[in-house]
Amino acid sequence: MVSGLFKQNASPDRAQITIREATRADFDDIYALFQHILKEGSTYSYSAEEMTAERSLQYWMEATGTIASIAEDNGVFAGCSALRPNRTGRAHHVANASFIVHPDHRGKGVGAALGEYTLALARKKGYTNMQFNFVVSANEVAVKLWKSLGFVIAGTLPKGFNHATKGLVDVYIMHRPL
Amino acid sequence: MVSGLFKQNASPDRAQITIREATRADFDDIYALFQHILKEGSTYSYSAEEMTAERSLQYWMEATGTIASIAEDNGVFAGCSALRPNRTGRAHHVANASFIVHPDHRGKGVGAALGEYTLALARKKGYTNMQFNFVVSANEVAVKLWKSLGFVIAGTLPKGFNHATKGLVDVYIMHRPL
Repeated sequence: MVSGLFKQNASPDRAQITIREATRADFDDIYALFQHILKEGSTYSYSAEEMTAERSLQYWMEATGTIASIAEDNGVFAGCSALRPNRTGRAHHVANASFIVHPDHRGKGVGAALGEYTLALARKKGYTNMQFNFVVSANEVAVKLWKSLGFVIAGTLPKGFNHATKGLVDVYIMHRPL
Repeated sequence: MVSGLFKQNASPDRAQITIREATRADFDDIYALFQHILKEGSTYSYSAEEMTAERSLQYWMEATGTIASIAEDNGVFAGCSALRPNRTGRAHHVANASFIVHPDHRGKGVGAALGEYTLALARKKGYTNMQFNFVVSANEVAVKLWKSLGFVIAGTLPKGFNHATKGLVDVYIMHRPL
């Protein structure tokens, strides 16, 4: 089981973080956090308005091939990931994933735990590569985390994101084989 | 008018190529060509099966913000382009575009004419950058064309495409300011 594998590899300082498969009952937590993050305007391109509950449910849980995972910090919802095919057809071997971490649980290894779990899940599902299409360069915590998990910056999109407080900033495409 | 501008700049050897705005009546030509190209399996990731008429109509003409343009070679349908926002929200200033050229009209500058027209249209619509997310490296004609129109390879996705005859090949992300 992926979850068991992850626990064996976890570092002691995030021993309180557990990851599990999401259920439909988790969606309210996911949606509230996603809306909070979209309103911050510093990491995702989508506007809070366009990401209605219906679209968000598709995005995080119900679109074809999507698998959501939940991070809990001592049993409390702390973040989630969604694994999905980046494209279909002749590129369906490449996975994509999205991550959000609750502001009350940042700096505790939640993102790393979700990242490791989701990479293992992608391998288990038969993907051979993982690609992030839109990592905002100003999101230094995320860039550092993905590098630590084996991703490289495969490309830079100049001024690709209109950051809420920094204005136009570059966007990275990050990639790793699985 | 963009069309007029383009004609003034056209090189004499493709004087017979004209570009115009698409209408719903063009869709049968677009769909037949798109299906032919998807079945070739050398440029687009989508399978021919998943790109039903309904999805193809959205993709080329009717999705939010999409504008289709038609190339004619002496009045005969020769190819088309679709201009669209690459993303929404905080990245809506970046355009994306797709192109297909009919096999009977290749090597005549149809792609270049459509490319120039679509770049001018993107500027007119207020986009500040154009990004191609998926240019198959083995598609040398396309890579050369986009370079000649000012695009650079912003990133490489190793083995991102399962080419029908060449197997796994790299994919480029190409980009230019407008």
